[in-house]
Amino acid sequence: MISGRRYRTGEDRPEQLDVAGSDSFATAPDSFSWFDIVEPDPDDLDRLRSAFSLHPVTVEDTMHRRQRPKVELFDEYVYVVLRPLTLTTEPSIALQDHEVHVIAGRDFIVTLRWAPEFPMQEVQARWNRHPELRDVGFAIYTLLDEVVDGYLTAVEALEDEADDLEDLVFERDAEGDADILQQRLFRLKRDTVVLRRSAMPLRQGIDLIQEDASISTPALAPYFRDVMDHVIRVVELADNVRDLLTSLLEVRVAQAANRLNEAMKSMTAWAGIVLVPTLIAGIYGMNFDHMPELSWQLGYPMALGVMAGSALGLYVYFKKRGWL
Amino acid sequence: MISGRRYRTGEDRPEQLDVAGSDSFATAPDSFSWFDIVEPDPDDLDRLRSAFSLHPVTVEDTMHRRQRPKVELFDEYVYVVLRPLTLTTEPSIALQDHEVHVIAGRDFIVTLRWAPEFPMQEVQARWNRHPELRDVGFAIYTLLDEVVDGYLTAVEALEDEADDLEDLVFERDAEGDADILQQRLFRLKRDTVVLRRSAMPLRQGIDLIQEDASISTPALAPYFRDVMDHVIRVVELADNVRDLLTSLLEVRVAQAANRLNEAMKSMTAWAGIVLVPTLIAGIYGMNFDHMPELSWQLGYPMALGVMAGSALGLYVYFKKRGWL
Amino acid sequence: MISGRRYRTGEDRPEQLDVAGSDSFATAPDSFSWFDIVEPDPDDLDRLRSAFSLHPVTVEDTMHRRQRPKVELFDEYVYVVLRPLTLTTEPSIALQDHEVHVIAGRDFIVTLRWAPEFPMQEVQARWNRHPELRDVGFAIYTLLDEVVDGYLTAVEALEDEADDLEDLVFERDAEGDADILQQRLFRLKRDTVVLRRSAMPLRQGIDLIQEDASISTPALAPYFRDVMDHVIRVVELADNVRDLLTSLLEVRVAQAANRLNEAMKSMTAWAGIVLVPTLIAGIYGMNFDHMPELSWQLGYPMALGVMAGSALGLYVYFKKRGWL
Amino acid sequence: MISGRRYRTGEDRPEQLDVAGSDSFATAPDSFSWFDIVEPDPDDLDRLRSAFSLHPVTVEDTMHRRQRPKVELFDEYVYVVLRPLTLTTEPSIALQDHEVHVIAGRDFIVTLRWAPEFPMQEVQARWNRHPELRDVGFAIYTLLDEVVDGYLTAVEALEDEADDLEDLVFERDAEGDADILQQRLFRLKRDTVVLRRSAMPLRQGIDLIQEDASISTPALAPYFRDVMDHVIRVVELADNVRDLLTSLLEVRVAQAANRLNEAMKSMTAWAGIVLVPTLIAGIYGMNFDHMPELSWQLGYPMALGVMAGSALGLYVYFKKRGWL
Amino acid sequence: MISGRRYRTGEDRPEQLDVAGSDSFATAPDSFSWFDIVEPDPDDLDRLRSAFSLHPVTVEDTMHRRQRPKVELFDEYVYVVLRPLTLTTEPSIALQDHEVHVIAGRDFIVTLRWAPEFPMQEVQARWNRHPELRDVGFAIYTLLDEVVDGYLTAVEALEDEADDLEDLVFERDAEGDADILQQRLFRLKRDTVVLRRSAMPLRQGIDLIQEDASISTPALAPYFRDVMDHVIRVVELADNVRDLLTSLLEVRVAQAANRLNEAMKSMTAWAGIVLVPTLIAGIYGMNFDHMPELSWQLGYPMALGVMAGSALGLYVYFKKRGWL
Repeated sequence: MISGRRYRTGEDRPEQLDVAGSDSFATAPDSFSWFDIVEPDPDDLDRLRSAFSLHPVTVEDTMHRRQRPKVELFDEYVYVVLRPLTLTTEPSIALQDHEVHVIAGRDFIVTLRWAPEFPMQEVQARWNRHPELRDVGFAIYTLLDEVVDGYLTAVEALEDEADDLEDLVFERDAEGDADILQQRLFRLKRDTVVLRRSAMPLRQGIDLIQEDASISTPALAPYFRDVMDHVIRVVELADNVRDLLTSLLEVRVAQAANRLNEAMKSMTAWAGIVLVPTLIAGIYGMNFDHMPELSWQLGYPMALGVMAGSALGLYVYFKKRGWL
Repeated sequence: MISGRRYRTGEDRPEQLDVAGSDSFATAPDSFSWFDIVEPDPDDLDRLRSAFSLHPVTVEDTMHRRQRPKVELFDEYVYVVLRPLTLTTEPSIALQDHEVHVIAGRDFIVTLRWAPEFPMQEVQARWNRHPELRDVGFAIYTLLDEVVDGYLTAVEALEDEADDLEDLVFERDAEGDADILQQRLFRLKRDTVVLRRSAMPLRQGIDLIQEDASISTPALAPYFRDVMDHVIRVVELADNVRDLLTSLLEVRVAQAANRLNEAMKSMTAWAGIVLVPTLIAGIYGMNFDHMPELSWQLGYPMALGVMAGSALGLYVYFKKRGWL
Repeated sequence: MISGRRYRTGEDRPEQLDVAGSDSFATAPDSFSWFDIVEPDPDDLDRLRSAFSLHPVTVEDTMHRRQRPKVELFDEYVYVVLRPLTLTTEPSIALQDHEVHVIAGRDFIVTLRWAPEFPMQEVQARWNRHPELRDVGFAIYTLLDEVVDGYLTAVEALEDEADDLEDLVFERDAEGDADILQQRLFRLKRDTVVLRRSAMPLRQGIDLIQEDASISTPALAPYFRDVMDHVIRVVELADNVRDLLTSLLEVRVAQAANRLNEAMKSMTAWAGIVLVPTLIAGIYGMNFDHMPELSWQLGYPMALGVMAGSALGLYVYFKKRGWL
Repeated sequence: MISGRRYRTGEDRPEQLDVAGSDSFATAPDSFSWFDIVEPDPDDLDRLRSAFSLHPVTVEDTMHRRQRPKVELFDEYVYVVLRPLTLTTEPSIALQDHEVHVIAGRDFIVTLRWAPEFPMQEVQARWNRHPELRDVGFAIYTLLDEVVDGYLTAVEALEDEADDLEDLVFERDAEGDADILQQRLFRLKRDTVVLRRSAMPLRQGIDLIQEDASISTPALAPYFRDVMDHVIRVVELADNVRDLLTSLLEVRVAQAANRLNEAMKSMTAWAGIVLVPTLIAGIYGMNFDHMPELSWQLGYPMALGVMAGSALGLYVYFKKRGWL
Repeated sequence: MISGRRYRTGEDRPEQLDVAGSDSFATAPDSFSWFDIVEPDPDDLDRLRSAFSLHPVTVEDTMHRRQRPKVELFDEYVYVVLRPLTLTTEPSIALQDHEVHVIAGRDFIVTLRWAPEFPMQEVQARWNRHPELRDVGFAIYTLLDEVVDGYLTAVEALEDEADDLEDLVFERDAEGDADILQQRLFRLKRDTVVLRRSAMPLRQGIDLIQEDASISTPALAPYFRDVMDHVIRVVELADNVRDLLTSLLEVRVAQAANRLNEAMKSMTAWAGIVLVPTLIAGIYGMNFDHMPELSWQLGYPMALGVMAGSALGLYVYFKKRGWL
């Protein structure tokens, strides 16, 4: 599905373009055109290629998913691959991976999107709010900034989840769901790696843009520096979460060993409390002809008393040593 | 809450400015103005923006908390974000995170602070003590130096805590609070990461300042080199504490395994000491018609003696092998 | 086994060369020659050496297997060592390691292959499809691109295997084959290291090629940039898989400790359930003359009831605490 | 305590200076002066400052302990902070941390030392042996070289300790002192980190010196290159020891798990050996009216034989499986 | 022990030199002299120093063992320290550490060797085979190449050992020698670190040589590039072995935990199988007057049957759950 808008210089509202026609990707003097293609089919890509003289390697790249984020400068256009992330809350909080390709020249930008589609409303809104800045650099900037803001939102959600997990790890009685906690720790670590891998290559990409004065004009330079700063912050926060999770996993191992220790001690203590009276019972169950206690009137209650006493003594002893 | 002070060249004491008025952020020739805003509201930021022609990305940055420490040079001003840390002692020793933004031009500096407010008395005092150095570079230096001194104080507190934890880890009998020790190790590690993340970006920032001769004048260059040196020291000491804590966590795992081993051996030993007499009692509890010992006059004391002897023998044996 | 093909400029189909003859490696004006040698014997290498004036170190390198991937520029030729990987599915999914050496000059390319032979059909097909690009750079590019595509296929297979292993690790009841799972984790990690080691040196190699304008002509530059991008992606994905596997191994250790804990608790519970009734039986097995219960009509069922009751009580108690 | 010596050009023996007088830090033409101050008091530092026009940040640095090793070039002098380490053997082998500050100009050097004082005899002796090289560069070199030689001695002592610990870790029967071994491993690791942190910053410092032709004269360049080489060797050896210790700690964890395994198996085996005869005794302790064995003449010895036989059989079985 | 050989230009065989005489280290026009000194005594070093005007730091370095591998360029000579490794097979496969120092000028080379002596036959043979290349660069190259080939042989032996250990780790029944396996893993890791530390500094050293056109002549440049390539390969392979060993150690810990788990379950199962019949025996050992089963004709075999049945039932149950 293709949609096109043309922004004439000095005019506030864009003109809707009919991109179904044969001449659909034409640009016009004194204007900037924005084409947005969702789930492009081979035919769309073919028309794109001939309209903007795309290089074979660009065409090749647009035909495969799971590309690495990158910025490639060609003579007539710049090719940008983005891997935005959004947060989904259904069924539980998770990262949703998107892919957006951008082909942008002096007076046009083409955005290619695939399902699940990265939402562009906010990008369009920011673009519309600044008619004075409408050129290719600002178009790329708004897109980049929106994507990187998404990363910041995501990394903050990951930080919150890491805080929750930290609380769970140090909660005394939360043992029943040890495996589920483990799994949440692991999943969070994996998400952090995905986030880092999506954001990291943008450093190199924005570097390239910053060196190209035709995109990063003096007016726009502070904006690109700001995006770069946010990318670095995302990567630092992600590294942070990752380090924290690694430590939490280590803590888990140490905790499990401690708990095992406690379980072992408590088992030893209970075994003693049961087995010592059993031994006493065994003694008075022996069949010797001459066992004076057996004929005592109070032999039986006395034996029960000794059993109870030994059990109680052991209980108090182990309780004191902290084994129970 | 805004407060302003104007330092006229050659005069020792500053003049208090009325910043509530419309003309509030005006600067004056032959003087240096210092504005300090606590918890700026949108209106304050708006007045700032128009008084000093701030760039939109600066305005944007001042509106969001948890910014990454950074230095950004604009044509007319330098924008600095700091994340100072102070030590609080209530209820227990912990790091308190602050945020300070600085906008500084040729003859003014604006400091923006948010609750919990980073205390500026010491910075002001140092600034007041050196009337001969009153320019933008020295203003930024006193602030930076105060922040980095705070990091040094913090990192030394973390080192002390790490030493305490080390002692606890190697104390023989401190087992009862294993989980609390684990938690303190983890919390300390996290604090160390926070400290490192606050200090680390200042290296890049001070680098930028050192390259700008209008801030880092020849007279000030040794001062900035000194701050840089302290930043590196903070990072090195923090790395140090972190490595130490990682090793302590590893030691904890090995210790837990050792203790488990000991608990297991002691359990085996006690089980033997109880179960062997139980077996003997069981033997003399058998109902065979022909068991000569049963009719011996001293059969019973003898059996008790054998039981006691086997228990004692096992006790001595296990004691010797170090299982008890 | 040597085969040769000569591509005359402007002609579509190659001429088959007879390379058994003495003059076999001759090149011809207005044409590009492609020689492919499988399992070269010393005699072949000798003829190569004299035909293309190879340097002694090149000759030396072609005589030993398990070379490191590299690109070496000599005055008259470029020497490339590649270590392609292909996926085999028999008996199970595994990486197959190949080795290809390339000697390429202005108007020829020699590919040396050893068993197991890296298949070249796809490379030849791509070369044949672009008669307009037939020069040494494009020959090297098609080969490199094919090899790197193989890496991408391989790394994606490793990712799938890693996903499978992750599912297995977090599957509740998959305990029986713990060692086999461990082994699969380890093998996958090792394969990832092999893949990384094969791909990584190509970054440096392609760098060298990109700086040599005689191979990386302006027309080919975007192609080599594209291959480079894919190499980086392979390395990043491989790093990713490796990190994931490291975390999974850590999770395994924590899980094993948890399971041990559970096994210990369940053992303690069952021991209690069996040993408490045993103690009761022991008590009524004592031989005291005066034990009133022994003569009760319902003494026996009562004793059985107490035993069953204590066992049931303990069972319910431990079930509630989650020890069973 | 201040002492001063003046070395006149062409003269072999130095002249002792009276540094208590007001003019005490004066230098003289055609001579090189060496001032050594132990535990300088504020007054000494004040006189130093005015005698050699020290920069405020230098004065500040000399007033605080635990400075980071560094080299700072000022217009009129170079400021060097060193953190030498010496080995003490009382009560056990340990690293002793020192701190030495150096202020050196064209014709003087001031060394500041604090308790525990770094011994300077060897440095003075080497200086005295080379009258032809007496300038500021050689003074700094002899000091640096002595400090770095101390690091080499220290790192070799740490290597020896690591070898001892390795032997202890792999000694079969050394289990009793598991915790002490752990502690020694940890302490050694910490010492290694201290050593590395003391030596590492010297790389950067010597780099600075090497670039300053007034200190690192052509005649001295090979000497400074040699010191640099030793610093790198110290760092490499320290890294080595650290890696080794990390591996040893890992080995300890694996060993503890193995030993636990063995303890568990041996416990299972012994439990079986005691409990199976107990079961047999229990059987013949039953009170059935019709138990033919009970009335056999040889019933009792037979029962004892079955018990002994089952215990022996289990013992042999477990011995064979390696559980005992 | 000193031996000397002189290679006259255009002559194939060298002339033996008498190096005991006073003039022993003299060089001659149109020739290249090779001096080889085994276990030099202070006198030899003294003669060397004066013959070739060695710098004091070179003399100092030749007097101490365990130097770091390095290349130092002086005006009149180049000083090279090498740490070759050879494989010994007695008593078991191990790395033998050697030390070789090289002093080489325009028309001479001096090799200093210490016990255990690094064998030089192969180096001499290669030197003899190429009379056309006899200059200082080629002398250094043959030596370097021989040393690096030794590293390659060593790293391949370490790889084989690592493969053996991997097989042992994943072999099901190899538990008896857990500690020995651990030790072999650790020793191999240590050897890998030694190898890496010996080879790594050569990268920097060969870099230095490659930049010096008087040693690395255009004719020799490809040779030095080849050695460099081999050094990188050694380091990469060593890193590889190290990573593999780290993973194997981790796997060991996870395996030990798994085995412990299995041992615990099997213990629980056997305890149940023995203790449940013991409980039954205890029940029929009670002395109640009214226990109908006791007087049944088949009471005893029935009781035995119940015991056997419960044991069998538990056995089958635990077998099914995989606890046995």
